[in-house]
Amino acid sequence: MTSSNSVAIIGAGIAGLSCATALQNAGAEVTLFEKSRGVSGRLSTRVTDYWQCDHGAQYFTARDSLFHDEVQRWIDHAVAQEWQPLLKVFDGYTFLKKDNDSNTTRYVGYPKNNAPAKFLAKELHVVSETTVIGIHKQAGKWLINGMEHGIYPGRFDDVILAIPAPQAGTLLKNTTSDLLHICNAVIMRPCFALMLQYDYTIPCQFDGLFIQAGLLSWVARDSAKPGRKVASSRSSDVWVLHATAEWSALHVNDDRERIAQIMLSEFNHLLMVDASIQASAHALIAPKSQSLHRWLYADAEKYLTDICHYDTSQRIGICGDWTNGGKVQGAWLSGLHLAKQLITEHK
Amino acid sequence: MTSSNSVAIIGAGIAGLSCATALQNAGAEVTLFEKSRGVSGRLSTRVTDYWQCDHGAQYFTARDSLFHDEVQRWIDHAVAQEWQPLLKVFDGYTFLKKDNDSNTTRYVGYPKNNAPAKFLAKELHVVSETTVIGIHKQAGKWLINGMEHGIYPGRFDDVILAIPAPQAGTLLKNTTSDLLHICNAVIMRPCFALMLQYDYTIPCQFDGLFIQAGLLSWVARDSAKPGRKVASSRSSDVWVLHATAEWSALHVNDDRERIAQIMLSEFNHLLMVDASIQASAHALIAPKSQSLHRWLYADAEKYLTDICHYDTSQRIGICGDWTNGGKVQGAWLSGLHLAKQLITEHK
Repeated sequence: MTSSNSVAIIGAGIAGLSCATALQNAGAEVTLFEKSRGVSGRLSTRVTDYWQCDHGAQYFTARDSLFHDEVQRWIDHAVAQEWQPLLKVFDGYTFLKKDNDSNTTRYVGYPKNNAPAKFLAKELHVVSETTVIGIHKQAGKWLINGMEHGIYPGRFDDVILAIPAPQAGTLLKNTTSDLLHICNAVIMRPCFALMLQYDYTIPCQFDGLFIQAGLLSWVARDSAKPGRKVASSRSSDVWVLHATAEWSALHVNDDRERIAQIMLSEFNHLLMVDASIQASAHALIAPKSQSLHRWLYADAEKYLTDICHYDTSQRIGICGDWTNGGKVQGAWLSGLHLAKQLITEHK
Repeated sequence: MTSSNSVAIIGAGIAGLSCATALQNAGAEVTLFEKSRGVSGRLSTRVTDYWQCDHGAQYFTARDSLFHDEVQRWIDHAVAQEWQPLLKVFDGYTFLKKDNDSNTTRYVGYPKNNAPAKFLAKELHVVSETTVIGIHKQAGKWLINGMEHGIYPGRFDDVILAIPAPQAGTLLKNTTSDLLHICNAVIMRPCFALMLQYDYTIPCQFDGLFIQAGLLSWVARDSAKPGRKVASSRSSDVWVLHATAEWSALHVNDDRERIAQIMLSEFNHLLMVDASIQASAHALIAPKSQSLHRWLYADAEKYLTDICHYDTSQRIGICGDWTNGGKVQGAWLSGLHLAKQLITEHK
């Protein structure tokens, strides 16, 4: 691959950033388009004046040696750390210790989950706040049409879609690429994430909870992650609640205040059945402030395991966690492998 | 059927009482055996010094004309009344008005749900606090073996089992009757019922709630039924919560206090998401007193619709709601039809 190869990557989540980094290192000229202000996609952090909270991907693990090396690089650059939470499972009756956990090392971004993405983006050309609504071929080169600023001035040899399947599908409809069928086969599901800030520490016996009954699937003490307290000294406890995909899908367009109210009430239910809380007063624990986020494409009902896809004739690629078994590692490897494929094909 | 026909009926619930009444009216000599102190089976009421609560069957409807006439007789004798609760459905998000309810008339026992059973029992010979653990044939007559007092002095031409399928099955194992197979085919499920007494009235917008999400299936303001307030003037609100069959089965042998705690907490969750409660303070509503009951055979996973069964050669019959589509009406009709069959066969 030569430096004259220009690549447009849509989506500056972990897959897009990983792909961009590898392509740029191989000599390509890469431009990343991102609809949000910041990078990191679903490995992200909401920041307010007084507190912050990782409301998307909660942590990452590194079972693959390539990704393990990358995480070590992140740790060396102080943008990730190991997280050792007190994790439990609630089955609707008891809080059980999480089994077969001894071999699992969990990492988080430091001091926020979006830190690794920001670290990767530093070396890259990111065009942010640009929602790509169309890609068109003109004289053998790709044009990128953004909602906010119209047609981007650059021309690209390749386009990489590093975004959720439904969004990739929408862009592929403008093309003649067969990759559209792959996107259409994947159903992505929403997730409501409720962030709660308390001015005291909730005395429950878990930092993270996998929930097998009710409308919540996961709750975690975000402030128990390394570095979080320092960054938000005025709030002692920050929690994040994730609703199940099923419940989120059922109420995806319903009233936000009511969604938050029901999720908070279910969290209080969990706290009340936790033995350590039970002893304390019959008072519902009220957060000082809260914020609800709706992830429209939080996860896939069934992930693909194809790693990534590249349409050689059209010069379009797709990557993302959803093409590679899910998770942060899946996203990072997917972007990397797509980059390798482009490098091989065009050298 | 002549007055020389003697019949032992095991179980003084609605099926047993209905069967006994019809047989006695036809001239048979009937003895009812009941393991509890009182009659009424699952159409029952727990009574404390200060409050009472229908913790089993919640109400009854009368779609069959024979049962409709019987309910009218109960109303005429002031042991039943119509109940017009504010009923809603909670789907995990909103409280919906219950549809197609305009044609349904709901009745309850008056002033307690066990009143019709007591009314029926008045005319009958009931041997209470007698748990039948065996039935044996001796010289062509049935002997009844009770756990508390041993072999009952009477001898019987017929035995009727008006008890849940698993209990009937246990007694049938001592016999050569084929009815055992029928009992073994029915799976009955448990239900935890939590009764709560409050010293004020909970300002929620329902008296009864069908719940489609979570571990509760039904909650009702028992004190909103006719006659209940008078009988318990010192408690303004009495509620009953039923857990789902699935959750009850999962935790059927688990710690009672924890079961109650989790059910109460889930009720509080419901109250907090009810719009009218939401406005009030962030305080959990605490009951003044509470009582948990475990129904081991609350309902059948799938009800039979055979009405009843009679083994002519062995002279054993089985009846109950579970042989006849469930519900109070099913139980009453099942007992009645079994009586009619005996009367026809032995006249």
